[in-house]
Amino acid sequence: MKARIKIMLKNGVLDPQGEAIKHALNNIGFENVTGVRQGKVIELEIDGSDKGQVRSELDKMCNKLLANTVIENFEIEIL
Amino acid sequence: MKARIKIMLKNGVLDPQGEAIKHALNNIGFENVTGVRQGKVIELEIDGSDKGQVRSELDKMCNKLLANTVIENFEIEIL
Repeated sequence: MKARIKIMLKNGVLDPQGEAIKHALNNIGFENVTGVRQGKVIELEIDGSDKGQVRSELDKMCNKLLANTVIENFEIEIL
Repeated sequence: MKARIKIMLKNGVLDPQGEAIKHALNNIGFENVTGVRQGKVIELEIDGSDKGQVRSELDKMCNKLLANTVIENFEIEIL
């Protein structure tokens, strides 16, 4: 089974990488870009056939290792 | 207008970060994870009302700055 996890900084948490991208885009002529947030996407291949169980395992993976839930939100998508 | 760009290493390009995540997950008990690829997601806020024009600008941004098209693929999504 394939799954995708998207991890973004929570709203309100400063995102210096996103700010740097915004400035770079503005500087090379894309002045209409007014905000940028950068995050991570992790695509996993998992053995398992029960979507519910796989989703619950992915949730544990995020909480234990993949995301820092103090400052980051995550979204799980089974593909 | 809001847009999301997903940037992943092309298939066949070695992904040491993904490998490290896979090993870490296997080590903490998720032995059923057989493959991991890590990529970036960039969410942008753009002034503009014409979806087609915004999409073409995003395509230029990716080719000029955001993605390394030699080793990375990108996907644009208007939200």
